[in-house]
Amino acid sequence: MVKAGIIGATGYTGAELVRILSRHPQVELVALTSRSYAGEDMAAVYPALTGYTGLPCADLTPEEVLKRVEVVFIALPHGHAVPVAARALEKGVRVIDLGADLRFREAKTYEEWYKVPHGNPELAARAVYGLPEIHRKAIRQARVVANPGCYPTSVILGLAPLLKAGYIDPATIIVDAKSGVSGAGREAKVTSLFVECNENINPYGVAGHRHTPEIEQELSALAGMEVKVSFTPHLLPISRGILSTMYATLARPATEAELRQVYQDFYAGEPFIYLLPPGRWPHTRWVYGSNNCHINLAVDGRTGRVVVASAIDNLTKGASGQAVQNFNLMCGFPETMALAAPGLCP
Amino acid sequence: MVKAGIIGATGYTGAELVRILSRHPQVELVALTSRSYAGEDMAAVYPALTGYTGLPCADLTPEEVLKRVEVVFIALPHGHAVPVAARALEKGVRVIDLGADLRFREAKTYEEWYKVPHGNPELAARAVYGLPEIHRKAIRQARVVANPGCYPTSVILGLAPLLKAGYIDPATIIVDAKSGVSGAGREAKVTSLFVECNENINPYGVAGHRHTPEIEQELSALAGMEVKVSFTPHLLPISRGILSTMYATLARPATEAELRQVYQDFYAGEPFIYLLPPGRWPHTRWVYGSNNCHINLAVDGRTGRVVVASAIDNLTKGASGQAVQNFNLMCGFPETMALAAPGLCP
Amino acid sequence: MVKAGIIGATGYTGAELVRILSRHPQVELVALTSRSYAGEDMAAVYPALTGYTGLPCADLTPEEVLKRVEVVFIALPHGHAVPVAARALEKGVRVIDLGADLRFREAKTYEEWYKVPHGNPELAARAVYGLPEIHRKAIRQARVVANPGCYPTSVILGLAPLLKAGYIDPATIIVDAKSGVSGAGREAKVTSLFVECNENINPYGVAGHRHTPEIEQELSALAGMEVKVSFTPHLLPISRGILSTMYATLARPATEAELRQVYQDFYAGEPFIYLLPPGRWPHTRWVYGSNNCHINLAVDGRTGRVVVASAIDNLTKGASGQAVQNFNLMCGFPETMALAAPGLCP
Amino acid sequence: MVKAGIIGATGYTGAELVRILSRHPQVELVALTSRSYAGEDMAAVYPALTGYTGLPCADLTPEEVLKRVEVVFIALPHGHAVPVAARALEKGVRVIDLGADLRFREAKTYEEWYKVPHGNPELAARAVYGLPEIHRKAIRQARVVANPGCYPTSVILGLAPLLKAGYIDPATIIVDAKSGVSGAGREAKVTSLFVECNENINPYGVAGHRHTPEIEQELSALAGMEVKVSFTPHLLPISRGILSTMYATLARPATEAELRQVYQDFYAGEPFIYLLPPGRWPHTRWVYGSNNCHINLAVDGRTGRVVVASAIDNLTKGASGQAVQNFNLMCGFPETMALAAPGLCP
Repeated sequence: MVKAGIIGATGYTGAELVRILSRHPQVELVALTSRSYAGEDMAAVYPALTGYTGLPCADLTPEEVLKRVEVVFIALPHGHAVPVAARALEKGVRVIDLGADLRFREAKTYEEWYKVPHGNPELAARAVYGLPEIHRKAIRQARVVANPGCYPTSVILGLAPLLKAGYIDPATIIVDAKSGVSGAGREAKVTSLFVECNENINPYGVAGHRHTPEIEQELSALAGMEVKVSFTPHLLPISRGILSTMYATLARPATEAELRQVYQDFYAGEPFIYLLPPGRWPHTRWVYGSNNCHINLAVDGRTGRVVVASAIDNLTKGASGQAVQNFNLMCGFPETMALAAPGLCP
Repeated sequence: MVKAGIIGATGYTGAELVRILSRHPQVELVALTSRSYAGEDMAAVYPALTGYTGLPCADLTPEEVLKRVEVVFIALPHGHAVPVAARALEKGVRVIDLGADLRFREAKTYEEWYKVPHGNPELAARAVYGLPEIHRKAIRQARVVANPGCYPTSVILGLAPLLKAGYIDPATIIVDAKSGVSGAGREAKVTSLFVECNENINPYGVAGHRHTPEIEQELSALAGMEVKVSFTPHLLPISRGILSTMYATLARPATEAELRQVYQDFYAGEPFIYLLPPGRWPHTRWVYGSNNCHINLAVDGRTGRVVVASAIDNLTKGASGQAVQNFNLMCGFPETMALAAPGLCP
Repeated sequence: MVKAGIIGATGYTGAELVRILSRHPQVELVALTSRSYAGEDMAAVYPALTGYTGLPCADLTPEEVLKRVEVVFIALPHGHAVPVAARALEKGVRVIDLGADLRFREAKTYEEWYKVPHGNPELAARAVYGLPEIHRKAIRQARVVANPGCYPTSVILGLAPLLKAGYIDPATIIVDAKSGVSGAGREAKVTSLFVECNENINPYGVAGHRHTPEIEQELSALAGMEVKVSFTPHLLPISRGILSTMYATLARPATEAELRQVYQDFYAGEPFIYLLPPGRWPHTRWVYGSNNCHINLAVDGRTGRVVVASAIDNLTKGASGQAVQNFNLMCGFPETMALAAPGLCP
Repeated sequence: MVKAGIIGATGYTGAELVRILSRHPQVELVALTSRSYAGEDMAAVYPALTGYTGLPCADLTPEEVLKRVEVVFIALPHGHAVPVAARALEKGVRVIDLGADLRFREAKTYEEWYKVPHGNPELAARAVYGLPEIHRKAIRQARVVANPGCYPTSVILGLAPLLKAGYIDPATIIVDAKSGVSGAGREAKVTSLFVECNENINPYGVAGHRHTPEIEQELSALAGMEVKVSFTPHLLPISRGILSTMYATLARPATEAELRQVYQDFYAGEPFIYLLPPGRWPHTRWVYGSNNCHINLAVDGRTGRVVVASAIDNLTKGASGQAVQNFNLMCGFPETMALAAPGLCP
């Protein structure tokens, strides 16, 4: 049994971590921190957990948490993880950070898009980007993993095979992504109210969303050249789920069958990635509550473009499920432990 | 490993059975029958199951299924299960019927409300009503279990402790129930269309819903006298979930604390039933996708009534999860096998 | 043209007032007050109004508003309307208060349930309860109208004919009501977040909701005796709409046809109240965005009870539409002016 | 008063026509045809219309309808309108066809994408494409108007100013569109069920949707050259609304301010088209139930692209509202008659 703690346990990603870890056969949750709910049981904050965890939330300092745990999950708003991760490293505690602070190899990219000083460029360079399908080997050895953003997970998984194999022109990539409202977190703000989100869709962060450089960092590495993308997220009236629809011009003529083979090869043996059969397009509800990623693609002969769609649950494969997948890799457990389940559908 | 089959696998309760059983460590699914989707993979009909079942749907006769299995789940519209169950009994195959055909001890009650001949009153009398919290011992011995209806499950669990202990006047029970749309099944009909259900609530089957006599049969047995209830179901714009709000006049003065103790005693040791703390009212999303039932109550001193609310997932505890719970009991497995999980919330 | 102002214009009922009044042929909106959005255009706060109002929100004092207007709509949280209404009265400005402060003839009832001092019992006694179907004559003469609560509107309209005619036992009334989330207002709080409300239903305020005494005041007046009700509201994942399902024991045997006639007589000539044909139960979406109220009923011979259901849009007939209806009556305009429209369905 | 009839009145676009026309001061609705609901009142099929229309649905032949009316709205599935429109023309009855049959100047384009013979290429060539913002003059003179598709309306309105002014490279246009479920019509099919659409988004018709050639016909005319687009529609869990997000590479450098001016000039005086202020992106709920179209754009300096988003209600501006707008133009009424209203929001 590995002793684990969650710093920032009462946000949606924190709760999703507890939901998953409460049934992980190799984890003992020993610390859940929260300022707003200190002293309350986790099951009082998320009554779905009634009977599945008896742990209270406490306003512990990072130091107090690090004393008790072997692995710490950090689920804080960006800007707060760096000193905690640095200290954990000193104390031999493994770190999985679900925020953005350690996702960039270059701290200055982070500073440019997030408008805050990073504070530890060396740590930034050292942290491993926790997308197992791309960086599995490094994750296995990592002491600090930066868990990917939800949109980047869906986009990188959707485009990696084509970019790696050179099938698309990296200058032509357009990503139109759609997310459920849980992606906005549990903060009480007008724009996340039911009445403001229901019966609605809208774009936001057009030409400036912070997940753009994260997507570009990883796609550039895959393409072996600098990639810039047009990325437009949209807010959807669903609780969970991200669908990314991606467009790119083929760099050379290719049949759909050929491209399908590229995906099958790239993802051979992957436990969570499914290329759906021809014509069966991803639906977010098919991955609802699961760590699975569904992908499909079509070649549009009329325009010379390929269209790829990928669906994940933003809280699971897009956050806490992937964090547990990284945890499993870091600890040497089977990668799917506590994660193997189909989406809750219908 | 127990070989199991599902007759009528492609409705929502069938799919939910596959979802749960695909991860049951003691079950080997060997037959899924469907007329509409014969020849298609179950994962083609429900792509959420991609990677979790490779079994195709087939238009098998009951006889063909019974040859292959030790336990059969019947998930057919009412009116079709009786001959299958009778034949299974002859062949030594255990039966769990998710329909209404075997829920009534008196076949004529069934005939009166469902307007079809029953065909086997003896079998009706012999089948066990599969609500484990009330009939666990009988279920353990049963060859044929009639899995309860979704509404009755929520209502009986909500009222059983009070009726059994004689705290409420059985002549005053009013049940106002609300269900998600999956309760209407996967049949293509206008009233189940998204646009017809969305942004809406409406009552239906007022003073005549077929779950009324089922509720009354079980409440009468608990009360030791004939009970009649006013039961009004409503259709809600959610996929899964039933909330039943129940009203009754106290037969004798009682404090809320006293009644809470009655529930705690009645459900002591139950793995799926949770009386929530005072003031925390059940939310259907807290049991979403789980086999749990959340209950709470209040005494209204002004009117001398008690108000009880219970929440379940209609497809899980209200159908397929409960069916697997019954299966576990019948086979001697731990009752929670493949079922122990918190609701998917957030 | 009547000059009108709205104090508290940027909540949902304020916005609904602007939506309706922006097309009222006899109204000139001259003042919209808001603290949070002072200086912003109303169309910036509610972009649906783009092109339909050019009025900015301003942090005006009540005194400044009263100088400019002939009628003032007050859409403030409870506890703030009394001094404004008193001052308006002095200045000869007519008042329609959408809050609870003036709904009770007895100020002490208000104080008991709302836990704040009232401050002007005389004004409480003098204000007219603005349910036109019950108090039309008084409203026509009124200087101060207390616009009814959303739940009370649906409940009183649903039960008035039966209580007035003595068909039901007033001691047996149970009201199970369901409301869309806009009823909770636009305040940023966790319980109103999309993710907290979506795919969910829950009861709240059980045996203690503040609309209870308001319902009881009006039902008691109709029955000619003190009436106490069990009232349980529920929160639904819809933006607009209230459905109230009401149960009562018949005081004397009656056929459904007889009761239908009672409703038809009671509501003869009413422009917004529709008793639907037998078997067609109210759906909230059928009154979506409209000032209409749909009602139906059934007699349950088995239990001797009558079941009544009524549906309104909580923001329209349950708040701002009814406020405009009252405005029309007070000003001598046709009662349906700016309000005659079917629900937005599909 | 103009006598009007609707052929195919009980689909969603038919019902929306009745909703709007029931309050049109210059229209007398005299015929509603339906096969499925012949003999039933329109208000029985759509109870929201209770009190707003007393007209029954009848299984009338087109000839019977044409005898009674001056204008006929055809709301049939594609493939049925051509002979009706031809006959109406002979009889001097004006036609507004809400289907696809007459939208293509070249009948063979229709035949290629819709896989049915057209039957009257001459009529195809003669019908006017009913997008008033582009073809207002021709609509005023037209005897037969082909009402645009819902997606094409949103896309053409979104891109017309840029294409007309030559600001974008027509070879680079990508349209990612999202629609509510009412766009799929009222046909009872599994893919339109609540449970299949709720908590979900999915692409469909990728690289092959039938609205593609309609979009291309109009964009080509605006650009003065052949335009091909990548068009991907998605299905959203909302009842009403289309959001189209459009991407194109700038043909020459331009500031956002410059492009905004292009839109303002292009749409100067338009009663339903609103370019929102910088940074305020269209939300479908802001146009809910209205005939308005909200547009905004951003220049992405990093990629040299412009991103445009447009929102309409698919049943109103995307179908029946636009049909009434065309009707008003054809009859010489004010263009906004019965259509001037803000979206129903909140």
